[in-house]
Amino acid sequence: MERVPLEKKVLSENDRLAAGLRSRFREHGILCLNFISSPGAGKTTLLEQTLARLPRGDRVAVLTGDVQTDNDARRLARFGFPVKQITTGGACHLDARMVERALSDWRLEGFDLLFIENVGNLVCPASYDLGEAAKIVVLSVTEGDDKPLKYPAIFFRAELLILSKIDLLPHVPFSMAAARENARRVHPEIEILEVSATAATGMDAWVGWLDARRRQVQPAAEAPVASRARSVP
Amino acid sequence: MERVPLEKKVLSENDRLAAGLRSRFREHGILCLNFISSPGAGKTTLLEQTLARLPRGDRVAVLTGDVQTDNDARRLARFGFPVKQITTGGACHLDARMVERALSDWRLEGFDLLFIENVGNLVCPASYDLGEAAKIVVLSVTEGDDKPLKYPAIFFRAELLILSKIDLLPHVPFSMAAARENARRVHPEIEILEVSATAATGMDAWVGWLDARRRQVQPAAEAPVASRARSVP
Repeated sequence: MERVPLEKKVLSENDRLAAGLRSRFREHGILCLNFISSPGAGKTTLLEQTLARLPRGDRVAVLTGDVQTDNDARRLARFGFPVKQITTGGACHLDARMVERALSDWRLEGFDLLFIENVGNLVCPASYDLGEAAKIVVLSVTEGDDKPLKYPAIFFRAELLILSKIDLLPHVPFSMAAARENARRVHPEIEILEVSATAATGMDAWVGWLDARRRQVQPAAEAPVASRARSVP
Repeated sequence: MERVPLEKKVLSENDRLAAGLRSRFREHGILCLNFISSPGAGKTTLLEQTLARLPRGDRVAVLTGDVQTDNDARRLARFGFPVKQITTGGACHLDARMVERALSDWRLEGFDLLFIENVGNLVCPASYDLGEAAKIVVLSVTEGDDKPLKYPAIFFRAELLILSKIDLLPHVPFSMAAARENARRVHPEIEILEVSATAATGMDAWVGWLDARRRQVQPAAEAPVASRARSVP
């Protein structure tokens, strides 16, 4: 994005809308996760394999963003959960207004997990809060172990780094140790998982991370004190 | 980028500067090529292998853009040609002003080929003219054959598509026929080359394309009529 004064205004308007979304997600006990990566790093395949492992009837929904096409929504809808495509028509990231609009005809009461798959772009989506509980950055091993240093903003802001396509490690010049070290130079506390969604490697650890993260949200939303607090007009 | 009125103003100011660069490149008979791709698609490796094949003393220079780090400039400088890193410090693309500044202490008389390696981003760099003779989009086969449809702007604007990392084809779900068809749906006349810079496959065809493209520029710059035309005050 251009470094002009308007940027601040656009971002602060986005922050206002994102804060509104975040409080709605909290109110309904929804864990919202914002997936960010380069194009083709494997976000959609990871989500496909994740949805395939969730029980039918689980309270899960997906928003998926792209500049053009609804290919990803069609791929993800096969698993029986509500899925909606956001087509930005040129914009290089999702923003809070797009998410708000996409959610407008869904009853949030029906969900406790919302995946947002952002536009494939390792730069701009890092600056736009969508009201998520956590950003997850997906870096495929084919992209190179130097990327955390070259694109530090998203690695700094993400809670979890998923190193994807690890089945390709024998075929590419990628040092797992260097990638981990580079990520931790930018963000010492970042959590890191290694996954191949196509080879089903590391999927148990990822689904375990997801379950643990869901449990952190649920009890607070269901606790009587929290409910009383929410019912105050 | 945000779709706001300012965008038009930013782009038209950029177009003005880019037109200035383009006329300087023409005046000096320089072929300027603007390489655009996702992060980690192999632009730097392709340029390394290209520089390695050019004769020492060839009149070539490279500008390389990144959000952070000068890793790429250090990699490319090993080949003995002038190389300069442009670090955007957050911005998601190069713009004409950055290129103008980077060139300010170089004598353009010394070059007839300028490679510009843009920031790794398949969206935003497509909108910013840098005065180049042609944009070249690099798509690695690990990213998926659907990308021309998802990110149409850069495929529409590029003269050449380089399908990179073809040594990984046996290991990834990528249809070369689908990729070509998708690219030509967006841009029927786009030229397409298949390359693996690490396995040195397709490099002769790429260097041949480059030589032919350089010859298109040189004669015009050296022709007496063109010289006379340029000398009119």
